[in-house]
Amino acid sequence: MVSKNQIKLIKSLSQKKFRNKHELFVVEGVKSIREFLKSSFSLVSLFTTGASFEVPKELFQNINERELGKISFLTTPQQALAVFQIPEEEMVEIEGLTIILDGIRDPGNLGTIIRLCDWFGIKNLVCSRDTVDCYNPKVVQASMGSLTRVKVSYTDLKELLMKNDKIPVYGAMLDGENLYESTFPETAFIVMGNEANGVSKEIEGLLTNRINIPQFGKRQETESLNVATATAVILSEFRRGHFIEK
Amino acid sequence: MVSKNQIKLIKSLSQKKFRNKHELFVVEGVKSIREFLKSSFSLVSLFTTGASFEVPKELFQNINERELGKISFLTTPQQALAVFQIPEEEMVEIEGLTIILDGIRDPGNLGTIIRLCDWFGIKNLVCSRDTVDCYNPKVVQASMGSLTRVKVSYTDLKELLMKNDKIPVYGAMLDGENLYESTFPETAFIVMGNEANGVSKEIEGLLTNRINIPQFGKRQETESLNVATATAVILSEFRRGHFIEK
Repeated sequence: MVSKNQIKLIKSLSQKKFRNKHELFVVEGVKSIREFLKSSFSLVSLFTTGASFEVPKELFQNINERELGKISFLTTPQQALAVFQIPEEEMVEIEGLTIILDGIRDPGNLGTIIRLCDWFGIKNLVCSRDTVDCYNPKVVQASMGSLTRVKVSYTDLKELLMKNDKIPVYGAMLDGENLYESTFPETAFIVMGNEANGVSKEIEGLLTNRINIPQFGKRQETESLNVATATAVILSEFRRGHFIEK
Repeated sequence: MVSKNQIKLIKSLSQKKFRNKHELFVVEGVKSIREFLKSSFSLVSLFTTGASFEVPKELFQNINERELGKISFLTTPQQALAVFQIPEEEMVEIEGLTIILDGIRDPGNLGTIIRLCDWFGIKNLVCSRDTVDCYNPKVVQASMGSLTRVKVSYTDLKELLMKNDKIPVYGAMLDGENLYESTFPETAFIVMGNEANGVSKEIEGLLTNRINIPQFGKRQETESLNVATATAVILSEFRRGHFIEK
């Protein structure tokens, strides 16, 4: 049985203010939960309709599908739901490539970018304070466990960039230079801007390199690329040298 | 006033069987609708809370926000909703690069891939019959007007590939060769597989080249890339030669 209070608590975690108040967030799906269990995140409670997990008995609860439906945020609940503790934010140590998100609003985009960072070996993802919260259930869902391997933090971007003013700052800009003809350093910030408005004026002033993904055939009608697919292309270009045998 | 029958008809267009029966689909948002109006798609009716469009008066209806809310598929309706006719499927003429989707289920992924095809100058996107319908409202939404410039068709992939057996068939496979060390022809099929199961066995047998996006650091835990971001990286590699001055 899931108690009414448990349902109420879990459901409240769709909202940032309650996640912050309780310092808790939700992970759904057997595969994702197993990744969080292997990581340094602390489990608070786990509900499943039959999957097996190696966790302390007092944190574990077998429930039926109807009950899972009551606590799940998914249209099609996925066998298991776990509540984990939100860890305290540590200081970011800047090393290698760091992705900077300037006002990303869509949870799916943030989740996909976290997954991309994981794939391309980016340890730090630093977000402006108006970027969507990484413990939002939709972000956790889209990141597919990658949130256990990429450190996501929220800070004042201007301060961060000014404090690290020896590191080049690349920004994806429509008027930037051809990505494919650029050369890239091992250590850099890469700024990706808001879905509708791009990089904010304040941060634009701190860019040292403006880059652009050229459009094939240069037709004018096409929209810009989605921010997550643009991040994929840019990270691939930054990393491709590592994958080519000299 | 939107009539009850209009509401019922439009709402039914969220389902493929009713889209096929009526040969109609929905486009939302001023920007996307303008792109469809400029294209060869035929407008059937247009509802707006105040945006201006150059369309025949008899197809145009000013409505209020409450009415728009009743016909919209969006949580936040976007000023305008239009119904267009689904065009008859034409024969696909294979030329240049063709993306082949083998069982893509997520509407957001298909929409994003249509947008990528548009950006990277891919004219034809050919889908297996079990791929999500491109006139699904979520696909239209995610494709941001690119559906007016990319021809999406549904067919038996095996037949298509066997009929065009002189054209190389690239497939994104986990055991494929390093994407970044591969060279690519001007004319090719690129097969992207289902979100969970990858390329189907039947189509795998017809691949001539297996390619893989290598993972930075080769850790084993990470999930594969999302199919839309993998398509972004692969298309970028196929096209990058065009963007570099010789």
